[in-house]
Parts: sequence; structure tokens; C-alpha cells
Amino acid sequence: MSELIYAYDPVIELKRLLNRIEHDKIFVITDSNVRRLFFKDGGSDIGNFLDSITDKIITFTAGEINKNINTVCDIWGSLSCGGATRKSLVINFGGGVTTDMGSFAASTFKRGVGYINIPTTLLSIVDASVGGKTGIDFSGLKNEIGTFAFPKVTMVCTQFLKTLPTRQVLSGMGEVVKMSMLRSRDCYMSIIKDFEPTDDIIRKCIEWKLEITAADPRESGLRKLLNFGHTAGHAFESILTDRGKDSISHGACVAHGIMVALILSHMLLKMPSSLIYEYKTAILSNYSAVNLTCKDRDLIMEKIAHDKKNSGNEMKLVLLRDIAQPVFDVSVSRVDLESALDIYLMNDF
Amino acid sequence: MSELIYAYDPVIELKRLLNRIEHDKIFVITDSNVRRLFFKDGGSDIGNFLDSITDKIITFTAGEINKNINTVCDIWGSLSCGGATRKSLVINFGGGVTTDMGSFAASTFKRGVGYINIPTTLLSIVDASVGGKTGIDFSGLKNEIGTFAFPKVTMVCTQFLKTLPTRQVLSGMGEVVKMSMLRSRDCYMSIIKDFEPTDDIIRKCIEWKLEITAADPRESGLRKLLNFGHTAGHAFESILTDRGKDSISHGACVAHGIMVALILSHMLLKMPSSLIYEYKTAILSNYSAVNLTCKDRDLIMEKIAHDKKNSGNEMKLVLLRDIAQPVFDVSVSRVDLESALDIYLMNDF
Repeated sequence: MSELIYAYDPVIELKRLLNRIEHDKIFVITDSNVRRLFFKDGGSDIGNFLDSITDKIITFTAGEINKNINTVCDIWGSLSCGGATRKSLVINFGGGVTTDMGSFAASTFKRGVGYINIPTTLLSIVDASVGGKTGIDFSGLKNEIGTFAFPKVTMVCTQFLKTLPTRQVLSGMGEVVKMSMLRSRDCYMSIIKDFEPTDDIIRKCIEWKLEITAADPRESGLRKLLNFGHTAGHAFESILTDRGKDSISHGACVAHGIMVALILSHMLLKMPSSLIYEYKTAILSNYSAVNLTCKDRDLIMEKIAHDKKNSGNEMKLVLLRDIAQPVFDVSVSRVDLESALDIYLMNDF
Repeated sequence: MSELIYAYDPVIELKRLLNRIEHDKIFVITDSNVRRLFFKDGGSDIGNFLDSITDKIITFTAGEINKNINTVCDIWGSLSCGGATRKSLVINFGGGVTTDMGSFAASTFKRGVGYINIPTTLLSIVDASVGGKTGIDFSGLKNEIGTFAFPKVTMVCTQFLKTLPTRQVLSGMGEVVKMSMLRSRDCYMSIIKDFEPTDDIIRKCIEWKLEITAADPRESGLRKLLNFGHTAGHAFESILTDRGKDSISHGACVAHGIMVALILSHMLLKMPSSLIYEYKTAILSNYSAVNLTCKDRDLIMEKIAHDKKNSGNEMKLVLLRDIAQPVFDVSVSRVDLESALDIYLMNDF
């Protein structure tokens, strides 16, 4: 399917990679922030190296709001003008928006050119750049358009995280927390104790994700687990993006979405309520509020109804019996979901 | 991969199909011509039936010129507004543009919803609706954007061909001729004798295509054979579409493209020149001229250089040693290709 490399020195690893992956031209896709941070004015070793090997750096304006078909058309156009062929190689260098959208553009250009993901944020390392999902937002819905496609290689380099802004670390931590809640009490307890993305925890998260996605690449069963916290989380994110509030990150929305899932887990699967309290004080307290109110409940419900994991009126959620005891495809009635959202929205999380 | 059904009565077969394929909603994608011919004013049995079972008929303006990302966005929008879920079923009902573009839209909506192809033209029966390629044109290039994806079912109903305009029959015959030249001297001789798409020939063409695409779905080897006649053919088609001349069909362009391939086959593989003469008098004489001249040669070369099957300066073509003796990946120099185009363009085909 796809290869994973942990790189201590990204330039050396990339050189090795390019020696063994057949290609004619190289195209780098990145966003304006990463372009500024890694390429301009002296830049970084990896930026200078990419600059020296690429036929074209394709840069789009940073932000989830640009993860749309217009930007994809610009990318396709740049590939086309740059003479990209089926043997060309695309390197997606950036955060989740870059790896999601760059992978979609590459997987559909000439029915698919090979691509490498080099994630630069915690979120894209643990979530977006592995697992074979590509996507863009459409019509106000997250990742509404996309493909299942795998990069040739994902190159993980945790040294990029050292200079990451807090907001970005928090975003990635949302997915790290999710993974640990699904898979390991030990890991979750260590995060509760010390809210830090250590290299060890990052590797575990990636391995778990690869394990699950290899077993069920097309999300017909097990993979659904990865949607834990995403039902409400994606709805929050869609609404905030629609309102032009790009300040709340994906991971922060997931962290809040997990709270809704925990309330439902207690209601429907008798998960101990102490876990809700623990989650609130040790995890959610790190995040700012999403600023949604009871007035937004119906809009949230509407967004959830559009979620591609749902079909018809039936809502299927991932809930927990306990930490590391997830259950997927739990049928949740409209009324119960509304109640859980009411409880969540009434509280000042 | 995908199922193929030959339907004598399309309504009965479709009823059976829908009983066994799980789905929530049904969306029909079709173009304005098919909509008018099959659905309006009494319509046809299949049109009335589709009308009665679908949640929404999504109609786009007919013509290759509309096989683009704007139309796909309209289709995605209609699916989204219509509440399509991952369990919805898309029925692509129409010619090659409909099955290519409808399949692309379906295969990328929510990362893929199931779809059925019901081709209504000879071209889409023998070519577009089987084999797992989807696509749209982009930046003046044919099928530049697309996916490899398979319909759940392709339903072939040759009775639709009875009312097909001559131009459409000729277009499909281009692909029928191509297939027979690649695979069977007997079949080719019967077409030389009587230029007609009999049910027997149609079935053979579909079976051959399925055989080849099953052996090599992603076009890494054998499948390249199907590009016979398409190197020049696609270039002709791109140029004529750019010039707003929608009057020359895909199959007609392929028929002309085959002539270029035959000239090269004689030059490089010693294919008997008598075959060129035979092809000209018995096959190409059925088609009108493409009206390209020696002045267009460089533009044709430029289009060919952009072809997704080529990489860099190397041109790889499918040529024939003889009927039913094809060779793929034949390296053709720029000079030889230019000579063959000159010979072709000088003649009044």
C-alpha cells in the first residue's frame, strides 16, 4: 500500500527516496505559510533542498477555507502547465490541508500520479498524511469530495514540530487524544498527566492508524472507529468555517466533539461519568471554547445529517464503554443526540 | 470488480438489479439530449421507469464541451442538495460523456458512491462504460482528470442503438474497428465486408475490453493496447473541441488516428502497406474529413506531448505488425511521428 519513514534528517532521507523512486519531474505542493517559514530568506535545509530538486513549487493560500475545488483546479493547472506526466512525482509538504488536498489533486491528475507526503504539523503527522484518504471541502461540508488513495511514502519528521505554534500542537493533540482513548489506557493516562506529544506517543498513534486502515481501507467496518469525536466535531468545524472563524482548529473541534461522544457514551453505554469529568479537567481545559450556543443546535443537527458516514435518518456513532473499549455503529436516535448536544451546549466548555 | 448484464428488456433487468443492490436513494445522471429523447412527452419505457424510481434526475447540457469540472461541481451540488449518502446509488444513463463524467462525479463524491452505467450509444457500450476509467477534460486535454473506479454494474441494451443517429453509430464503430484490428482478423474482415455493429461483434468487443482491463486495470502494460489510434486521435479531438467543432465525434477521430498509427506501423514494423489501402477504402471512407492541414502539425505534436501516456520526450505508441498482431510501447522518435503526420495530413482522408 504505502511506506512510512521516520526521518531524523529529512534531506538525507529524501535524497535516498528520490534515488529509488522512479520519476521524471518533481512538483512540490505547499501553502503560503509553509512557503514563508521553510523556503524564504535563507529558509531551512529541507526548504532549500526541495527548492533545488523541484521543477515547480505550487503554492496556495493557507487556510481550510481554501481547501476547495477552485484551489484544486489551480493545482491541476500548474501540474499541466509544468508538463507533469504520469511518471512525475508530487511532494505534499505541509499540514493537513496540504496533504489532504495535494493528495486529492495528485490522485485525480491523469487518473493518478505518485505522491509523497511530508507532514509538517502534528495533526497531519498523526492523522492526515497516513491512511489513504484524500479530500476537499465542498458546499460547506468537510471532505465531501475525495478519493481513497495512498501516497508512495509518508515521511515523518518530528523535528518540524519544535517550532510549531501552540494552536497547531493543540490541534494535533485532539487526534492524539482520540487515538489513545480508542486504544490504550496507559497512553491516555500519560497524556492526562502530561499533555505533551512525545515521539513515543506519536509513533504509537501512527502505528494504530496504519493498523486500522490496513485492515479496513474503505471504511466498511473497523475504520469507522477513527470517527470517534468527529460526528459533532466535523459539524462544529463546518459551522465555524462557514462563519469565517478559522481560529478554531480541526483538532480543537474534535476535542469538543469527543465531549459530546462521551456524554452519549454515558447515556447509552453506561460509560462511567467520572471519565467525562476527567476528560473535561485534564484535556478539554487546554482548548478554548467553540462559542456555539443552544441556538446553534438545529444547525449542528443539520450538518450531522449531511455527514457522509450517515445514511438517511439513522445516526451511527462511535462511542466508548470505557477507555480503550470503543464500539462503532452504535445507533443513536435523533432525540438522544439532541439531548447530548443540549447538555454539551449548556455547559461552558 | 464489476458486473456486466446484457438486457433484452432494460426495465425488467433494472428492477431485478435494484432489488438486490442495497441503496437508500437513487440519482440519475443524464444529458439534455437523452433527457429529451427518453423522458419527455410520453418518453420511453426505460425513461418512465427511471423517472418513477429516482429521487432526482440530474441533467447537464449535452456535448463533450461540457465534460468539465464546472459540470462536475453542478453534479456534486445536486447530489449534496438531494441528500445523497454513501449508500445512495447513481445511475449514469447516456453516452460516453455521461458515463465518463457521471462515474468521475460518483467515484469522488463522499470518496465514492456506488454507480450503475447504462450506456445508450454504441461508443459508450463498447468503450466508455466498461473498463473502470472515469474522466473529464481539463485545460484543453481529453480525460486529463479522472480516477480508476468500477461501476457496480454495466447494463448493456443494444435496442437503444436502433434509433441512434448515423454520426453516433460511426463514432462507436471507430472503437469497434480498433478492437477488431487488435484482436481478430475474422472480425475485422467481416467489418470490412459489412460496416455494421452486429450484436455478436458488440459482445466480442466488450469481452475483449473486459479481458484486457481485468488483466491490467491500471494501464501498466497490456491495457496500453487500447490506446491504438488514440495518440493522434485524441490530439485531433482536443484541437477540434478547442475550435468549437463538436461535429467530429470521438470515434471518428480514433478512425483517423488509426490511419496515422498504420502509417507508422508500416514505417517502423513493416506492416504490409496493403492494409493501409484496405483501411482507407473500406473503413475511413465512411468518415468525413477532420479538416486539419499541414499547418496544424506542430499543434498536433504539442497535444501529443501532453498525452498522459507519454512521459518526457519519449513517445510510446501502439502499432501493428499485422491485423491482430499489436505491439505496445513502441518508441517513436519525434521525427518519425512528424513524418507520419505529414503523410497523413498531405492526403485527403
